[in-house]
Formats: sequence, C-alpha cells, structure tokens
Amino acid sequence: MRQPEVSISDIARIAGVSHTTVSRALRESPLISTETRERIQRLAGELGYTPNAIARSLQTKQTSTVGLVVTSIADPFFSDIVKGVEAVARASDFSVLLSASYNDPEQTLDIIETFHRRRVDGILVASSRISDNYGRRLHHTHIPTVLINSQVEGQANLLHWISVDDRRGAQMAVEHLLQLGHRAIGYLGSHSRPASNSQRHQGYLDALRAAGVEPLPSWVVTPPGDEASQEEDISAGQQALAPFLAAGVTAVFCYNDMIAIGMLASCHAKGVRVPQDLSVIGFDDITIASCVTPPLTTIHQPRVELGRLATQVMLDLLQDRPGADHTLCPTLVQRASTAPLST
Amino acid sequence: MRQPEVSISDIARIAGVSHTTVSRALRESPLISTETRERIQRLAGELGYTPNAIARSLQTKQTSTVGLVVTSIADPFFSDIVKGVEAVARASDFSVLLSASYNDPEQTLDIIETFHRRRVDGILVASSRISDNYGRRLHHTHIPTVLINSQVEGQANLLHWISVDDRRGAQMAVEHLLQLGHRAIGYLGSHSRPASNSQRHQGYLDALRAAGVEPLPSWVVTPPGDEASQEEDISAGQQALAPFLAAGVTAVFCYNDMIAIGMLASCHAKGVRVPQDLSVIGFDDITIASCVTPPLTTIHQPRVELGRLATQVMLDLLQDRPGADHTLCPTLVQRASTAPLST
Repeated sequence: MRQPEVSISDIARIAGVSHTTVSRALRESPLISTETRERIQRLAGELGYTPNAIARSLQTKQTSTVGLVVTSIADPFFSDIVKGVEAVARASDFSVLLSASYNDPEQTLDIIETFHRRRVDGILVASSRISDNYGRRLHHTHIPTVLINSQVEGQANLLHWISVDDRRGAQMAVEHLLQLGHRAIGYLGSHSRPASNSQRHQGYLDALRAAGVEPLPSWVVTPPGDEASQEEDISAGQQALAPFLAAGVTAVFCYNDMIAIGMLASCHAKGVRVPQDLSVIGFDDITIASCVTPPLTTIHQPRVELGRLATQVMLDLLQDRPGADHTLCPTLVQRASTAPLST
Repeated sequence: MRQPEVSISDIARIAGVSHTTVSRALRESPLISTETRERIQRLAGELGYTPNAIARSLQTKQTSTVGLVVTSIADPFFSDIVKGVEAVARASDFSVLLSASYNDPEQTLDIIETFHRRRVDGILVASSRISDNYGRRLHHTHIPTVLINSQVEGQANLLHWISVDDRRGAQMAVEHLLQLGHRAIGYLGSHSRPASNSQRHQGYLDALRAAGVEPLPSWVVTPPGDEASQEEDISAGQQALAPFLAAGVTAVFCYNDMIAIGMLASCHAKGVRVPQDLSVIGFDDITIASCVTPPLTTIHQPRVELGRLATQVMLDLLQDRPGADHTLCPTLVQRASTAPLST
C-alpha cells in the first residue's frame, strides 16, 4: 500500500508552527530565523516531504507572480474580483501585484509595462477601457493575459476572457420592471464604460421590444464623464432624476448600483418616494446595496467567481494546459426599491 | 541669459504626440514602435533635451517602484490613500505595486517578502494590524518603510509614519454631540482594528469626562470580528442597535462610517428615526456617507493627503534626505444624522 504523502500542514502540526512558517522555511525566506529554518528543513527531510512537483517546476521557471490591472480601487465592484483572484493565486503560492488604471488607457499600458519589467508570469485585466489596438499591444508582451469583463481581438492561445453576460443581466432587470406593470422605463447609462454600457443598453432595448414597448429617446439618459469614479457615478445618478421625471418614466434601470444610490439620494432630497413614486433598479449588487434606504433591487454579478475563474485560466495557461473562455450568468436580487406600478 | 531647459512636454508638443509616448520612447519602452522611438530620440537630441538628473539617477540605481500594503481593497477608506500615493509616485515616474493583507499579519509579511523579492525601492504600509515584532521584521528588509495610520517601534532613519490624530477626531465627534445637548452617548468600537479603536475610545472618554459625564459600561459596545471587512462593519452596526437602545443612549459615535451605515439601516428597519430618536455620527467621511438616508455626520480624514505625504516622505528617504513623521488633524463634517436632544 502506498504511503500517504507528507504535506506542509503535517510538518507544521508536528513542528508546532504555522503553515506559512513551514512554507517560508522551505523556500529559504529571509523572514524566518536561521535556527527555525534549519529545524523545519531537517524535520521535512526526516518525514520524507516532497514538494509538489508542479508548484516546484513553476517556481523554478517562473516568478510566481501575476499582475492585475483594475479600473479603480475605489469601485466596490472590483474589490470582490481582487478577492477571488487572490484566493486562487494564494492557494497556488502565487503573489498578486495590483494596480489601478483610473479608466485611462495610457495608464493601463504603463502598468502593463511595469508588470513586464517586474517579470510577472501572467496579467489579468479588469479595466473598463480596452481597444483592439490595446489587445495587439498586450500581445506584444508575450505574457499570458486574461481579460475580466472585457473582450478584445487577439490570438487565442495567449489571450482569454471571463465575463458576465451584461446584455442578459440588463434584460432581467427590465423584465422584472415589466412584470411589475411598468411600461415607461428609463435607462441611466455610463459614458465612461462604453463597452458594457452598450451591452446593457442593448439588453434594455431587447426586453422592452419583446414586450411590445418602443422606448422614447427621452427615456435614455447618458450623463457625460470619463472617470468611472464613485463620485462621478453618484453625481450622475443625482443629476439624472429631473430629466427622468420630465420624461414621465415610472421606473429607472441604472447602469450600476452606485449610480442608483445617487438617484435614491436625489429622490430623498426632492421628496420623490421610492418605490411608490419611482422604482429604481441597479446592477452589480455591491455590499452597500442592501444597506441604503430603501434597500436596492439589483442584478447580482458573481464577482468573486469572475476573479477565481480568471486566475484559474491563467494558471492553466502557465502549465501549458489550454485556457477556456467563460461567460457567467447574473441573477436578479429583489429588495425594496422596486414595486408594482401604482395606478 | 540661460536658455530655459527643454522638457518632455516641449518635445511632445513639437512631435505632436503625448507626454507618455515621449517618456516611453526615451526609456526604450517595447510598447513604442521602433520608428516612433527613433524619431522622438532624434528630436530630443536636436532640441538639447537633458533628462532630470535626480530622476535619472534614481532610475539607474533603483527599480522606481514602491510597494503598498493595505488592509483591504474593499474598504473605501483605503482607496483615497491609494489615489494619493499613486499621484505623487506617478509625478516622480514611480510605479506602485499594491497588495491587500485582509487584516492578517501573516499575509502582510508574505506581501512584504514578495515586494522584497521584486526589489521595490520602498514600502508603504496602510494596514490596521501591526505588532512591534512586525516592525522589527520590517527593519530586516533594509528597505525604507513609511507607515500610514500605524505606529511601531523601529529605527528612525528607515521607518517613518504619517497618521491622522484618531484621539482628537473622536473628541471632536463627542464634543459635537455634547454641544447638541446629548449626555448619554454610546461608542460603537471595532475589535478588528485594536490600535486605532483604542485611540478613538480614549478620545470618546476624554470628551465625556471633560464635560463631567462618566460613561456607563453599557454605553460602550465592541462587537467581535477580525476581518475588518465592509460586511463585518455593516453587520456590527446593525446588531449593535438593540443594546444601545437598551442602555438608553440618545446618540452613538461609531468607529467608522461603514459601521454607522449599518446602524442607520437597522434604525430604518426598526422604525427608529434618525436623528429625531437617535443621533448617529461616523468617522472617515467615505464617499457614500453623503448619500445615505439621512446623510451622515462624520469626522473627515484627509485620506488623499495621507497617501501623498507618505509617498513624499518615501521619495525623500530614497534621495537620502531626512524623512519626517506627520500627524494630520481631522475635521467635523455636519450633515443630517445628528440633531439637538429632543426633550
């Protein structure tokens, strides 16, 4: 019968130290005292510990680091993606280097250049502004790249994508409002995320037209702004209330939760009751969405899962396994900001 | 008369390209085509461009990268710190590598080890959990380190700190409530940030005692939890409402805004009117604070400034200039969640 393999956890238990300490001692970390290092290494030898072959081969050939570009640190949408990336990376002893592009395509390229100089093994991009030109440049770096919620043209063996179906999510939001009896439904878009905004706008149109409703031009509002920041979103939501009321809509589907929260604040300030006078639905399901007044109905994106999957595809690519592209489906979360049309 | 120096901006204007393109061409970036690179370099030569000596010397001796550790990407408190750090770093052509410790001291050490392996020039730590032992280990790395809102023992020439005066901020919050006529004032603390929680608790006691009020033990609530996550904060705020109402307080000073927002949500769900039945004040002044119902009165921390100053101190250290420690003063932001005690 084959002896079960000795793991780092076994060594840690027997030595009475943490998993991390054993891991550090075995890879000669300067953060562990010489005495501890030697004790752990001796014990590992006595127990017949053999390091995981894949991990070892990866570590000798590579730097065990992935670079992650996000649009903004401040955007709560990205924090869960980062969490998912870090969980999978950590489990494979990879480190994550994170940088924010602030929705600036030039800064995104600067960051990728820095990652390149730091010799990361792979790059994950969760950035809203990507052009095809950018895809070609990414390809220049010869580093496996996985795009999160973005798609560009590129060579398939090095460039992959994981995304949530924006168009389907928008359809679900509008179908929910239609089921509540609303017909005059507005869409409050985002100028600073043109790709996903276009998908969500299309899903909005799909759902309305499937229900036989032809939206008026005044039902779609896209405030200016290029920052894709929390402040910009909140302000967009606040300022769009008046045009929607003038257009006579009874419900508004907002591009994201932060924009919807700006609209809720403006409703509160102007005495517009939500959901009695106006139904409001967001997109993303950020943590704060359940805590605002009234709690926000929204479309949940599996953000942690997006980050996890993207990192898994990256690790597959690094081990010369074929990477796969994935589209995840969002779900409706009903809370208190939407209600049946009052007659 | 001395000729004014030719800058990168001058070259960019004359060549009709962006500042970034010139900068990349001059440092032989692979992201610029050979043709453009040669054209820019020729033009720079013709115009007599001399690169900034300090920047050049830094760049040849060093990697022009700083590592930044934050407790959590999700915590909106940190996003503005990151913004301040990146602004100053970018202006000096430094890149920022960012990692999240998730309030885990072991993971913080892992991150610093990774930064060390990546040969960053300096490390900025904005992480809530720091021990003196940790300070000694930081020192092992021989890399200049600046702590943001944290203090540890260490050798002064490599270890510096920038912080906001937590104790004074807490005093200001409680003085505001006292001025509104409140006497039975609660403090809702954070178990997962022991250092700053202790300072804010102390400031709370200072202000009450200066007003001749001796707080009852039941006025101070510190919910369990070690994550320092948004979810944990919101839940802490929601669950603490009942004990505060039982203790008979008329106002609550919360450790941070996210906890206060959790409490507002619970008040709304339970029919407790804010501020008529209960005044609530937070700490941080995160972006969302002005958008909740009612808009939150809070203590503003100059977060962008914290990040800027910390990075400036780091750059000073890297140029062998003495670094200085700084304590910044917070300010009161009055909104609608606090009101005079109704009699």
